[in-house]
Amino acid sequence: MCPCSPDDAPVNGVNGVNGHANGTNGHANDVNGTNGVTNGDHSGFTPISSRSHNPRNPYAPVGDFLSNVGRFKIIESTLREGEQFANAFFDTEKKIEIAKALDDFGADYIELTSPAASEQSRLDCEAICKLGLKRSKILTHIRCHMDDARIAVETGVDGVDVVIGTSSFLREHSHGKDMTYIKNTAIEVIEYVKSKGIEIRFSSEDSFRSDLVDLLSLYSAVDKVGVNRVGIADTVGCASPRQVYDLVRTLRGVVSCDIETHFHNDTGCAIANAFCALEAGATHIDTSVLGIGERNGITPLGGLMARMIVADRDYVKSKYNLEKIKDIEDLVAEAVQVNIPFNNYITGFCAFTHKAGIHAKAILNNPSTYEIIDPADFGMTRYVHFASRLTGWNAIKSRAQQLKIEMTDAQYKECTAKIKALADIRPIAVDDADSIIHAFYRNLKHGLNKPLLQDMTAQEQALLAQKEKELAAEPEKRALDEQVDAEADADRLIKKAKTNGITA
Amino acid sequence: MCPCSPDDAPVNGVNGVNGHANGTNGHANDVNGTNGVTNGDHSGFTPISSRSHNPRNPYAPVGDFLSNVGRFKIIESTLREGEQFANAFFDTEKKIEIAKALDDFGADYIELTSPAASEQSRLDCEAICKLGLKRSKILTHIRCHMDDARIAVETGVDGVDVVIGTSSFLREHSHGKDMTYIKNTAIEVIEYVKSKGIEIRFSSEDSFRSDLVDLLSLYSAVDKVGVNRVGIADTVGCASPRQVYDLVRTLRGVVSCDIETHFHNDTGCAIANAFCALEAGATHIDTSVLGIGERNGITPLGGLMARMIVADRDYVKSKYNLEKIKDIEDLVAEAVQVNIPFNNYITGFCAFTHKAGIHAKAILNNPSTYEIIDPADFGMTRYVHFASRLTGWNAIKSRAQQLKIEMTDAQYKECTAKIKALADIRPIAVDDADSIIHAFYRNLKHGLNKPLLQDMTAQEQALLAQKEKELAAEPEKRALDEQVDAEADADRLIKKAKTNGITA
Repeated sequence: MCPCSPDDAPVNGVNGVNGHANGTNGHANDVNGTNGVTNGDHSGFTPISSRSHNPRNPYAPVGDFLSNVGRFKIIESTLREGEQFANAFFDTEKKIEIAKALDDFGADYIELTSPAASEQSRLDCEAICKLGLKRSKILTHIRCHMDDARIAVETGVDGVDVVIGTSSFLREHSHGKDMTYIKNTAIEVIEYVKSKGIEIRFSSEDSFRSDLVDLLSLYSAVDKVGVNRVGIADTVGCASPRQVYDLVRTLRGVVSCDIETHFHNDTGCAIANAFCALEAGATHIDTSVLGIGERNGITPLGGLMARMIVADRDYVKSKYNLEKIKDIEDLVAEAVQVNIPFNNYITGFCAFTHKAGIHAKAILNNPSTYEIIDPADFGMTRYVHFASRLTGWNAIKSRAQQLKIEMTDAQYKECTAKIKALADIRPIAVDDADSIIHAFYRNLKHGLNKPLLQDMTAQEQALLAQKEKELAAEPEKRALDEQVDAEADADRLIKKAKTNGITA
Repeated sequence: MCPCSPDDAPVNGVNGVNGHANGTNGHANDVNGTNGVTNGDHSGFTPISSRSHNPRNPYAPVGDFLSNVGRFKIIESTLREGEQFANAFFDTEKKIEIAKALDDFGADYIELTSPAASEQSRLDCEAICKLGLKRSKILTHIRCHMDDARIAVETGVDGVDVVIGTSSFLREHSHGKDMTYIKNTAIEVIEYVKSKGIEIRFSSEDSFRSDLVDLLSLYSAVDKVGVNRVGIADTVGCASPRQVYDLVRTLRGVVSCDIETHFHNDTGCAIANAFCALEAGATHIDTSVLGIGERNGITPLGGLMARMIVADRDYVKSKYNLEKIKDIEDLVAEAVQVNIPFNNYITGFCAFTHKAGIHAKAILNNPSTYEIIDPADFGMTRYVHFASRLTGWNAIKSRAQQLKIEMTDAQYKECTAKIKALADIRPIAVDDADSIIHAFYRNLKHGLNKPLLQDMTAQEQALLAQKEKELAAEPEKRALDEQVDAEADADRLIKKAKTNGITA
């Protein structure tokens, strides 16, 4: 759903009234674009949810009975899936640092590499179990085999995540077992781990290329012997969101235990798939910091938070320390020697940068116009980029005012025209734009005509003169801008007057 | 859908038989995990599609009447949306270079910044129209205003993309117009552009926060006057995949023209949303190279190709020069001064890298086990990472054989154990692993006991000795590995025998 503003209360999730529709049939109750609704005095009445409490936005999905969008849990797998990332080599100290950071963040579970993978993996697992983390439970991830289960249980973990391939690909080319062997071994391992009083999850690998009947039979069998969670894994990253919804929803009708999901990102759907899985009744999502893992990884922790805060801000903010994400990402990126991608969710350098004039203007009026996430929720700040040919005079006015330079609107517009002309000639840095505004203001105040940028070449100055001439000869574009702005202002005034009960 | 192998024929899209279900009810016709199907002789019969031709994988979505997954078109917006990216400054020469590269790739349309944005934008638009590109049509993107439309038409473009904000946010805080004004202006602009004999698209901005009734009324009106396409834009990146499906599907029932969609990636759903839009009947997807655009951008071209090749490999390969993606991404990344993200779809340095022992082993047997995309389709290569503590002996055996070093399986296993022990002590580069294999083999051949790595410190050598001692004292893990491998081999032999008609 798209809440109308980051400050709106979430409407999806636990209060769902309809298990089928997803919101396209709703009728608008905000036809005139005004948000105020007067409910009158209802003291003495107990409010109840009913269909008439539709969200204002008709596209917000009708809450689904199955949806766990407002009550999901995270299984953070940077120290397991993430350790399988090509560049990852975490020594004990680094693992402990990452585990503590994830605990501070509020990860519900931290999943570790199998203690059967190497002697050091076993020692690291034991060391992390002994940390006594405040919020995160410790899991380890093992093959479906009694020997691995015994080693795992001895490390002191809170739970064990068991996995085995079920697709014909993996049965044939990886472990070579048939479904009967898989089921019997799974039940043996589950009963053993349960007897030790710790949690156990059973997951197929490559679930989306496994046989549906096999899969449901197997999950039904492990559910009956009391497994805590079953897992659905898109091991190769082939699943699409609606497939995920359908498979998880079908599984939700077959098992009574929790449902964990694990999505690889080979085809760019890892976050969307996680979201659709929660809508369909999954309870747990596997993540890793920056999404690191086999190939190009899995659902990234920061990206999932971006998705979920839009879906249920209150739940996400009440549960996770979102402002820790940047530090955790920096920590892991350094450890695995990668750069934070320029377009990373939340923390990428342009996640909250606005550039086009039309965007900048609206953002300055109301950030919700072009922002669905409030950067402050993550301890980040918004940045309006104004030093480009696409800038608008509203952005320049705002920047000038930040610089304590007051001019008339006509002067801001003239200054903007000069910046646009310069930006047509060469890239302008933020520093340059500031210099231009200052220089323009000085010229204005002292009746000067000095160059607006100090380090311009003769060629650039000639080009600029030509641009300015062109701009002067073409007033219609600026006139259009001004007309649009004036009309917008007039419309706003009329609307405000109407809202205040005055008829225009 | 998840095809069983990259070589399988696609089953989705044009041959859909059911508009509703998405594949969870299918029954398996591959219960035993064998892929061979004997069809016998059918000469004289005309094959027809029928329900019995279900794909082998029951999760493959049942083809949807509305789906355009197998016949979509791309509107490549690097030179419009991408120009709004914080770092973008494309001069004329760079724009021409990018436009030519996109034409070589096979982009159906190239969308350019409004010629009304600046004088240079207008000149660049004219220059690109004059290139006479072979495959790509040229569009420009303008505000819904006659003045902009007149300027656009004069540039020589093949079509005009008109946009106006329709959410109450944008109507109030950006342009300030009401829906009647929007509709009337839209019709005026559409009729004018059509009269010039070129294509026209009309799109709302922020469609997912707009009033549904307003939106459908407006689209219905512009459809009636003969607009070529209407556009749905998730301007703030708030939409979820199932919302997208529902809105596009609803719209599909209201208009008869094409449907273009534009998805921002703020909450990580841009690729998934594009895919669901196509499933629901959208025809055109907006992309940009590396996804660059406002904030953290839109559906990336490479990422969309990753998604679509899994959905319909034949269509994608027949239409687009996929091996050009890497060059185009390098070109744009350099122009906007960003690094290709480590986890970029297709071209990121680890997109086709496999690390965990269990993965490496299966990949060597059959790449489809852990790969849904064949890297060769994109001119890329697979890389099996074997220099880690998570490596398995199959990966080391494969690497040794690449190095022309033949040993017994027992010797490969011993060599693997040494590499794992070393990798527990410090990160090992690929070069190091090669050196170790060579050194191990030399020691073996000449009965030596020289150090396996040249540059080890005394401390590292002491640690290694300790690790090796530990490994020697703990045979059960290796024994387990060997037992699992032996069983797998035996199962495979039995299965092969069965397939050949021999009963075990």
